[in-house]
Amino acid sequence: MLNHFCSKPLWECTQTLAAVAQGARPADVVIKGADLVNVCTAEVQPGTDVAIACGRIAYVGQADHCIGEGTRVIDAAGQVIAPGFLDGHIHVESSMMGAGEYARAVVPHGTAGIYWDPHEICNVLGLDGVKVMMEDAARTPLKAMVTTPSCVPAVPGFEDTGASVGPADIAESMTWDGVVGLGEMMNFPGVLAGTDHAHGELAETLKADKVVTGHYSIPEADRGLNAYVASGVRCCHESTRAEDALAKMRLGQYAQLRYGSAWHDLPELAHAITDHDIDTRFANLISDDTHPHTLVEDGHLDHVLRVAVQCGIPAIEAIQMMTINVATCFRMDNELGSITPGKCADIVFLDSLDALNVTRMMIDGEVVAEDGKPLFDYPRFEFPEWVTHSMHLGRTLAPEDFAVAAPEGAVDGSAVKVRAIEIVPGKVGTFETHVDLAVEDGQLASDLGQDVLKTFVFERHHETGTFGVGFAKGFGIKRGAMASTVAHDAHNLLVVGTNDADMALAANTLAECGGGMVVVADGEVLGLVELPIAGLMNDLGAAEMSEKVHAIEQTWADIGCTMPSPFMTMALIPLACLPELRLTNRGLVDCTTFQFVDLAVE
Amino acid sequence: MLNHFCSKPLWECTQTLAAVAQGARPADVVIKGADLVNVCTAEVQPGTDVAIACGRIAYVGQADHCIGEGTRVIDAAGQVIAPGFLDGHIHVESSMMGAGEYARAVVPHGTAGIYWDPHEICNVLGLDGVKVMMEDAARTPLKAMVTTPSCVPAVPGFEDTGASVGPADIAESMTWDGVVGLGEMMNFPGVLAGTDHAHGELAETLKADKVVTGHYSIPEADRGLNAYVASGVRCCHESTRAEDALAKMRLGQYAQLRYGSAWHDLPELAHAITDHDIDTRFANLISDDTHPHTLVEDGHLDHVLRVAVQCGIPAIEAIQMMTINVATCFRMDNELGSITPGKCADIVFLDSLDALNVTRMMIDGEVVAEDGKPLFDYPRFEFPEWVTHSMHLGRTLAPEDFAVAAPEGAVDGSAVKVRAIEIVPGKVGTFETHVDLAVEDGQLASDLGQDVLKTFVFERHHETGTFGVGFAKGFGIKRGAMASTVAHDAHNLLVVGTNDADMALAANTLAECGGGMVVVADGEVLGLVELPIAGLMNDLGAAEMSEKVHAIEQTWADIGCTMPSPFMTMALIPLACLPELRLTNRGLVDCTTFQFVDLAVE
Repeated sequence: MLNHFCSKPLWECTQTLAAVAQGARPADVVIKGADLVNVCTAEVQPGTDVAIACGRIAYVGQADHCIGEGTRVIDAAGQVIAPGFLDGHIHVESSMMGAGEYARAVVPHGTAGIYWDPHEICNVLGLDGVKVMMEDAARTPLKAMVTTPSCVPAVPGFEDTGASVGPADIAESMTWDGVVGLGEMMNFPGVLAGTDHAHGELAETLKADKVVTGHYSIPEADRGLNAYVASGVRCCHESTRAEDALAKMRLGQYAQLRYGSAWHDLPELAHAITDHDIDTRFANLISDDTHPHTLVEDGHLDHVLRVAVQCGIPAIEAIQMMTINVATCFRMDNELGSITPGKCADIVFLDSLDALNVTRMMIDGEVVAEDGKPLFDYPRFEFPEWVTHSMHLGRTLAPEDFAVAAPEGAVDGSAVKVRAIEIVPGKVGTFETHVDLAVEDGQLASDLGQDVLKTFVFERHHETGTFGVGFAKGFGIKRGAMASTVAHDAHNLLVVGTNDADMALAANTLAECGGGMVVVADGEVLGLVELPIAGLMNDLGAAEMSEKVHAIEQTWADIGCTMPSPFMTMALIPLACLPELRLTNRGLVDCTTFQFVDLAVE
Repeated sequence: MLNHFCSKPLWECTQTLAAVAQGARPADVVIKGADLVNVCTAEVQPGTDVAIACGRIAYVGQADHCIGEGTRVIDAAGQVIAPGFLDGHIHVESSMMGAGEYARAVVPHGTAGIYWDPHEICNVLGLDGVKVMMEDAARTPLKAMVTTPSCVPAVPGFEDTGASVGPADIAESMTWDGVVGLGEMMNFPGVLAGTDHAHGELAETLKADKVVTGHYSIPEADRGLNAYVASGVRCCHESTRAEDALAKMRLGQYAQLRYGSAWHDLPELAHAITDHDIDTRFANLISDDTHPHTLVEDGHLDHVLRVAVQCGIPAIEAIQMMTINVATCFRMDNELGSITPGKCADIVFLDSLDALNVTRMMIDGEVVAEDGKPLFDYPRFEFPEWVTHSMHLGRTLAPEDFAVAAPEGAVDGSAVKVRAIEIVPGKVGTFETHVDLAVEDGQLASDLGQDVLKTFVFERHHETGTFGVGFAKGFGIKRGAMASTVAHDAHNLLVVGTNDADMALAANTLAECGGGMVVVADGEVLGLVELPIAGLMNDLGAAEMSEKVHAIEQTWADIGCTMPSPFMTMALIPLACLPELRLTNRGLVDCTTFQFVDLAVE
C-alpha cells in the first residue's frame, strides 16, 4: 500500500535524491563514519556515511561529495547506526498517555514507527475516538500507522462496549490514509467457525490490499492455526510457547515475539530462534503493551532488543526483527526498515552493538531525540469533551450494590463451591479454579484466607445498569478495594475488593473523575490515577505518569499485593477472548468453550 | 498491489479454506507425504501433506482429515515439493514463441509465474502489441505478470522504433490488472541525469504502488548506483561482477542473478553469495532471455536452479531465490512464493534435492504438467494482421545499398582505422575495437582475415529509409550473410555479411516473410526461421522452434561461425543501452558517453 507516513512521497524526491547521490546537489544531512547495521545482508559496514535529502536516504558509502554549504554533518565515528525501530503491534493506550506524549516517550528509545491498534479507545468511543487519537499522533514525528480495531466488542455477545465495529466500518476505515491494516483479529473462534462478521472484516481489509494482523492465543498449532493463517492473517503476537512461534513462522505467518511490561514471553519464545537453525525473516520483536514505568526506566524496543540479545539472539538478527522484518510483514519494506537509498531517513544511533543504548534518533532526516530526550514538542492537544467525559454509569453505587447472594438453597454456615479467576502475574492467561466459600447472611463474601476477592464489572458506556459478579484469586490483598476503568477490552468499570463499602467508594471515585485507577482502604482513597481521556489515558508525560502509577502501585503493596504491574494484570480479568475464565458486565465467561457459566460449580 | 493472477481472490476463499483446514469440508486436492521445502524458515519438512481448495493452500501438516469424497489424493512419498518458481525478469519474445506456447514450454519446468517485460513487441507495435500478448498469455495457467516496457525507444534519440512509451502511457498501463510494475529502466543515464521522462515513468509507477524494475549495466556501484536505487528502482538483473551484485543487495536492491541462454552471469555472480556470509534475501535467480533450444534441452528456472547449486549455493537457499525472494521483491509474498496457508497452490514436484528434476507441476491447485509435458492446450491464438505484417521497409534492397564509402580523402590502397563492434560470446557487453581496413574502389569492405564484417541496420517500422553502417568483429564467418529482425531493442532489420549481394538477399528474404532470421551464402538461402509475429515470434511450440533455430544455427557453422547462440549475440549489436559500441538505424553509438561516433577513428 502507499506509504503516507514520510515527509514526502518518493516520487516527489527521486530527482533530488539522484542529484544528491552524485554530488550534484548538497545533502541536507550527512552522517559520517558510522558502523552501519545493514539489515538487508545482515552485516555491519564500518566507517560508513549516509547522505540525506527530502527526508530520505540519498546515498550510502563515502559521502564527502554530498556535503555542501548548508549540509548538516553529524560525526558518528565510533557509533552504530541502524534503521529506526518499528513496533509491529502495540496499543498506545496501555501507556496511559495520549498518542502525542506516547511519541515523546518512545522516539528517544529508537522507535521510528508503530503499527498500533487503538482498540481500547475504540471500545469506549468507536472509530471517532480512534480519529481523535490519530490527530494527536499526526503532530509528532513518530510514524503512527493504524490497524483498525477488528474486535469491538472483543467477543460479541459477551460484553457491552461503548461502540461496535463491523465489516462496513472496516471498509470505511481502509480508505483513511493513516490506516495500514486490520487490528488484531482476536475473534479467532469466529474465523475458525467461518462467521460472516469475522470473514467480512478480513475480506474488506484484503480487498483494500492491506494487512490483517492476528491474535491466536491458544497453544494449538495444527488445524486451527492453519485455518487462521489460511484466512489471510499475516502475523500474530500471541504465542507463549516457542513451538507455537516456530509453527507460525513455518506457516508463513510473522511470529511477533512479545516482550511487554506485563507479559514477558520473549525469553521462552527466543528458543524458537536459538534452538533451531532457521531463516528468521518471519520473526518480529514487539511490545504489545508498555506501561509508563517501563518506558521511563527500561525503554521501548531498545529494551526489547537488549532482552533479545540476552536471550541469545544475535544483535543484527534481533535488529532485523524490529526493522526490515516488520516492514516486510506490512509490505512497506520499499519505504521503511533499512538504511538504503530511497528509504525514509529513519535512523537510530546506538553507542555500541554490545550495550545497545540509543544516543540519538532521526526520523525523516530530522534529529528528533538526543540522549533520551525528545526534541519535539507542541501545544497540549485539545481533546473534545465527549472524549474526556466518558463515564456513563447512570447512578452512584452503594455498598449494597456489591452484595453477592449465595445460590438458592445454600444455607448459612454451609460452603458453596464457586468458580474463581486465578490470575498469574506476568502472563496474559488466567485459570479457572474452584474454591469453597462460606455462606453468611445468605451471601458470599471475599475470603482473605484463601486470597479470594469479590469482583464486579459495571457497564459504564450507556447507562444500561448491567453488571457481572465473580471472584478473583491471587492478588494477596488484605484490606480495601481497587477499581479501574482500564479493563480490557470493553473498559467497563472493574472493582475488586475485600469489603463492600470500599468497593463502592472506589467505583464512585472513578465515576466522578472521568475514569482511572484507584486504591482505597477503610473509607479512604489511598491512591488515584486519573485517566480522563476515555477513562484510559491522561495527557501527562511519561515521567509524570510513571510516577503516578508507581505511587498507586505502592498503595497496592500497602494493602498487601506485591505482584508487578498489578493493574495491568487486573485489567485482563474481563478480557473474554483469552483463556480460561473471565468476567464481563454480562457475567462469568468460560473462554475455552465461550459459554456463560454460573458462579457456583454444579 | 492486489494479485489478479490466481483463480480467485483470497477474500472469496477464506471461509472455505478455514473449513477445509479443520476437516469440516473436504479438500479438492491433498498431496501426501512429501518432503516440503519450507522457504519461510529454510528447512525441509519431511513427510508433509498439503490440502488445497479454491486453488489455494488450506492446510500444511498431516492432512488425512481433509480427505473426503471427491478429494484427489496425490501420493508424493519420496518426492520433494517446493513453491512454484517465479522468474523475476524475463522477455517472452526471446523464446521466439508467443506467450501461449512459451507457457507450455516453461510450466513443465516448474515455472508458476513470470514477471515479464514485453518490451520487444512494444518496440515494434507499442502497448497495443503488449495487450495482444497478454491476451494470449491469459489463456494459460502461467501467471504472466507484466512490467510495462519503460524504454521504448531504449535510448531516445539514438534509434527509431515502431512505437514509443512515455509517462502518460505508463500511468495508463498501471491501471491494467495484468500490470504489476515498470519494466527494466534501461535508461539509467536518464535516471542519473534526472530527466523528466525517466523520472516521470518512475513516478507514475510509484504512485500506482507498483514495482520499478531495473537495468543498471555498468560496473559502477557507488554514486551512480546509489542514485539509481534512490530513485526507487527495486531490482536489477544486469550485474556481471559479483561485487556489483553484492553492492546492490547491500543497498537494498534485489540482485537478480542471471543465467539466460546467451548470458551466463551466474557462475561469476554466485561468488556474491558463496564468498560472503550474508543474508541472501535480496538475491533472486532469473533467466532474462531464454532461447527455445535451452527450454527444450535444459529447461527454464529448474536449469538455473541446478546451475546455482553447482555454483555452491545451497539448494534451499537457491529455491528461496526463485520463490519467496522474488515474491517479496514484487511485494506479492502474501499471495505467492511459499507453500503456506492462504497462498496460491502453485507447487513444483521434484525428484530430489540433489537431482532437482521437475516431475510434476501444479498451478492454482491444478496439475498442469507431468513428466515434462504440459497438460493444457487450446486453439491457436488468432493474431491480428497488424501483428503478423510488421515489416515496413518501403523498398526492396539492392547490393549497392550495402556499399560503404571510405572517408573522404582516403585513397585506394591506403588503410582506414575504423571502429568495430567486438562481440563476446555469452556476454551482453560488446567492446569497441579499432581495425585498419583497406580502401578499395573508394569503399570499405568486410575483411575476413581480421574477422571484421560489414553491418547494417535498416529502419523497418515506418518506411523512413534510414539506416546505420558499421563493422562487427568476432563472428568468424567466412562467406555469405545473416539478417535478423530480432535486433534489440528497436528490432529494425539487422544485416551482417561478407558480401553485398548476399546481404541484400538476406534482407529481402526477411522483408518478404514478415521478419525472422536468415542465413544466406552464394545467393542461396541456407536457413530461415520465419517470425511473423512482429518479426519476433512464431506461434509454433518450443520443440519445433528449437529445431528450426538449431537448424539455422547449423548454417552459421556452415559459413564458419562456431559461437553458441550466434543470433542472440548478434541481436545485441543495436542495443544502445549497453556498453560499449553499438549500431542503430541512426548510426554508430558510443554507449559509454552516449554520443554518435564516426565509423572512422580520427
